[in-house]
Amino acid sequence: MKAPEVHAIGPLRLGELSTFLAENGLPNEIRGDLDQMVTACSTVESAGAGEITFLANPKYRDRLRATQASVVILRAEDVPSAGEGTSLVICADPYRALTLAVIRIHGHRRHPQWGGHADARIAETAKIGAGANIAPGVTICENSVVGDRVTLYPGVFIGPGTRLGDDVTLYANVTVYDGCRLGSRVTIHAGSVVGEDGLGYAPVGDKWLKIPQVGGVEIGDDVEIGANCTIDRATLGTTKIGAGTKFSNAVTVGHGCEVGSNCMIVAQVGMAGSVNVGNHVTIAGQAGIVGHLSIGDGAQICAKSGVTNSVEAGEVVLGAPAVPVKEARRQMAALQKLPELRNKVRELEREVAELRKRISAMAR
Amino acid sequence: MKAPEVHAIGPLRLGELSTFLAENGLPNEIRGDLDQMVTACSTVESAGAGEITFLANPKYRDRLRATQASVVILRAEDVPSAGEGTSLVICADPYRALTLAVIRIHGHRRHPQWGGHADARIAETAKIGAGANIAPGVTICENSVVGDRVTLYPGVFIGPGTRLGDDVTLYANVTVYDGCRLGSRVTIHAGSVVGEDGLGYAPVGDKWLKIPQVGGVEIGDDVEIGANCTIDRATLGTTKIGAGTKFSNAVTVGHGCEVGSNCMIVAQVGMAGSVNVGNHVTIAGQAGIVGHLSIGDGAQICAKSGVTNSVEAGEVVLGAPAVPVKEARRQMAALQKLPELRNKVRELEREVAELRKRISAMAR
Amino acid sequence: MKAPEVHAIGPLRLGELSTFLAENGLPNEIRGDLDQMVTACSTVESAGAGEITFLANPKYRDRLRATQASVVILRAEDVPSAGEGTSLVICADPYRALTLAVIRIHGHRRHPQWGGHADARIAETAKIGAGANIAPGVTICENSVVGDRVTLYPGVFIGPGTRLGDDVTLYANVTVYDGCRLGSRVTIHAGSVVGEDGLGYAPVGDKWLKIPQVGGVEIGDDVEIGANCTIDRATLGTTKIGAGTKFSNAVTVGHGCEVGSNCMIVAQVGMAGSVNVGNHVTIAGQAGIVGHLSIGDGAQICAKSGVTNSVEAGEVVLGAPAVPVKEARRQMAALQKLPELRNKVRELEREVAELRKRISAMAR
Repeated sequence: MKAPEVHAIGPLRLGELSTFLAENGLPNEIRGDLDQMVTACSTVESAGAGEITFLANPKYRDRLRATQASVVILRAEDVPSAGEGTSLVICADPYRALTLAVIRIHGHRRHPQWGGHADARIAETAKIGAGANIAPGVTICENSVVGDRVTLYPGVFIGPGTRLGDDVTLYANVTVYDGCRLGSRVTIHAGSVVGEDGLGYAPVGDKWLKIPQVGGVEIGDDVEIGANCTIDRATLGTTKIGAGTKFSNAVTVGHGCEVGSNCMIVAQVGMAGSVNVGNHVTIAGQAGIVGHLSIGDGAQICAKSGVTNSVEAGEVVLGAPAVPVKEARRQMAALQKLPELRNKVRELEREVAELRKRISAMAR
Repeated sequence: MKAPEVHAIGPLRLGELSTFLAENGLPNEIRGDLDQMVTACSTVESAGAGEITFLANPKYRDRLRATQASVVILRAEDVPSAGEGTSLVICADPYRALTLAVIRIHGHRRHPQWGGHADARIAETAKIGAGANIAPGVTICENSVVGDRVTLYPGVFIGPGTRLGDDVTLYANVTVYDGCRLGSRVTIHAGSVVGEDGLGYAPVGDKWLKIPQVGGVEIGDDVEIGANCTIDRATLGTTKIGAGTKFSNAVTVGHGCEVGSNCMIVAQVGMAGSVNVGNHVTIAGQAGIVGHLSIGDGAQICAKSGVTNSVEAGEVVLGAPAVPVKEARRQMAALQKLPELRNKVRELEREVAELRKRISAMAR
Repeated sequence: MKAPEVHAIGPLRLGELSTFLAENGLPNEIRGDLDQMVTACSTVESAGAGEITFLANPKYRDRLRATQASVVILRAEDVPSAGEGTSLVICADPYRALTLAVIRIHGHRRHPQWGGHADARIAETAKIGAGANIAPGVTICENSVVGDRVTLYPGVFIGPGTRLGDDVTLYANVTVYDGCRLGSRVTIHAGSVVGEDGLGYAPVGDKWLKIPQVGGVEIGDDVEIGANCTIDRATLGTTKIGAGTKFSNAVTVGHGCEVGSNCMIVAQVGMAGSVNVGNHVTIAGQAGIVGHLSIGDGAQICAKSGVTNSVEAGEVVLGAPAVPVKEARRQMAALQKLPELRNKVRELEREVAELRKRISAMAR
């Protein structure tokens, strides 16, 4: 599957949807009226007449019979679970089919149009690209550069000397400090902050002397950052987020981290300073990584893990301190049986004492 | 106790306060001057002349004798701990009495008044209710609806097609995306974000294809959300927060979660996608819940727990992975004695080896 | 070392830098051209011609030989690791030398200058000090007081009756609620919130009655707060952050906490209500502290710890529940060997059973 080419957005006939899926690499079979209009995608529970839903996980088969959806996307083996009178799209990958249907029928968010950037606060030395859609209440400071077709929502702040690529979208109240670079098609959700100073101080007696944080932040093309994240600028050098990487909300990245491309960073993850993360790494929710560690390509860090040692490429780690997932599971299983183990040891102590007595008696 | 009816706010005589408490279901006995003016509520440590404080936890009895407060609310059994010259309000529930006193004397925050909404950026197609108090620097987009007597602080962003009920308060820099619905008397503290896209991508080779997040968010009446929280919109369908539920700060809710009514969600809690939380559930600080789980009515999730299985109604769970609290406590106790247990096992090994030798010697 | 007096900022000759370091308490020896211009500080990896870098941790000696930096700061024992043609600054504390070099060469951030405060939204009753640098899009409410030389970035909100000391810097979209007090030289990074209501409710049947949060927040001189932090106001009394304390990002402080001076609070730390933290305490990333506990002076709380008991002065704790670090390490080590211990116990059970049989046979 490639990213689909979409020439129109909106409702379409079931037959047209079938063709669209096939054109995008998903051969499929339709059971039902090819002229049925499909107007929206929805969940199994909330879909109504004219709407399409999907079944990807056989666990939820039961819910299918009660759906009010007109069309269901499912695998061949799940067909018997569908209710009567429902049209079916039978294919090998219902989740991808649904993704394509959402893109085709709903499309991506249409942003409010602010008709240029006449009411934003833009420094005279800033350069704004063609087709800008910049809201009132945006601030763009000196010597910054904004690419073509950029959308900036109200309350966005772009510090001096910062550069945004083309087709960037920054939602409301996003702050990008001075001297940062964002690639093309970067999207940052509301309230996130890029380029703030990290926790850099030198001890001076019992006080802390601030080390000016003179590095920057560089965010690659096609990165999407969730809401209320914070990405520290480097003390020296550059904090980097690689192309195609996606963050959920409330993620914090310490100064000088380098995160690779196409990673998936789940909500409330924290990285201390100078962490090096490879490509296509998954870091699940609330996990934390100690400073200066390396996480290899394709590694997976399970939710709530506390990573205190570098992780090899492809490794899956869990726990705090994090260890390979099989070891962690064995530890957790053993921990759950620990009270039982204590009882066994007590029993053994009793038995050994008894045996000792019996032997002593026999030896006499 | 019901929510009190308050017809006046400000200082009052001790006798009047006594009557107010009694009228609101808290019979009480006064020892001291009924004409004493009570001007403010404060802590035992910082209260001064004319001020009232309280003792709810007997643990803090010692601090009471040194208080400079003119009046103390306490239980009958704590009376001997009070200093001389302090007036007393003796009742069965000092915490509730204090709550009522704060409401009566201080009242709720009086918001700055912006005299309507003349200086906000409001789309022509938006509808604004009567008595609006909308600051300059607020943005309200097309086709949105704002109820009566709504207060919006500077920097608030209301996306297209979003609806706010009556008496809603959104503090500074709150962002509500398009197509969300907030009930009446909803309060959201500064910096929180409602309706951002969740982490929804389909894998395309080694890249991630964004699934448009076309669902919404629905927040019930009387919900209060802390500062810098993030509540994802659903991919399809609706993320829901039930009436009367309260959040502290920095809570993240994944796409498609449904949280019941009158829950208490403490700071830095994270829920992955499609979590189903019942009514009157407590989730303590820094706890995390894996996606697609169900948490039953009245369940309690202890601080820092990592919930990896659904939780029954009324159950109390603790730990990562979370287990029933008694089991978790037994595990933790056993873990603390684990080094000792290892020593015992080593001792047993030695003893058993010795016994074996002795038996072998005897058998010869 | 004291905070250095800096009379000029910018590139300088190596000889001048040497003198500057010596004047600020760091005697040093130069090997190389004293007239070499030093234009910027950078990392070992990214430094180029004319730039200075440093080696503080011998672990990274290998990287030194490949650096393109013109000057390296290092200890005498690391001199052999330096490449040829690189000038050297040899001193006892390269980290401090680098800090001083960054301050001297780069200086602290130069803020955009908004030429006063003509375009901000300032209540008539607010008082603004001399030399104010207040951006358009800032809101300052009634009866608030702003000290001299304060910089407020766009989107900052200062609630009614709040007081800021001199030389305060609040970055974009910071919200300070009503009735808070910030000392001099306080810096708060983008998106942080000070003085929001904490989670204060009394149960009323199965609902929650809001307790008006009438206390305040007081932040001492020289405090720096990271991005997207949240500091609750007290219910009664005052939430306090002591002078010189530094926070990283996404820290949450519950109502009524009192944090001492010169503490270091790392990202995503959470404190529940009424926690009392001493001076010079370090709380590492993602740690959480249960309400009403005391943390003694100089204590250290390791990353991800869950503190459920008060911590003595100078103590170092780790784990959830947190225990003294040595004990925690012993527990963790024992846990990692727990599966092995189970096997040993099983083996012992087998052996004891066998011994019992042999003894019984002998006794016959």
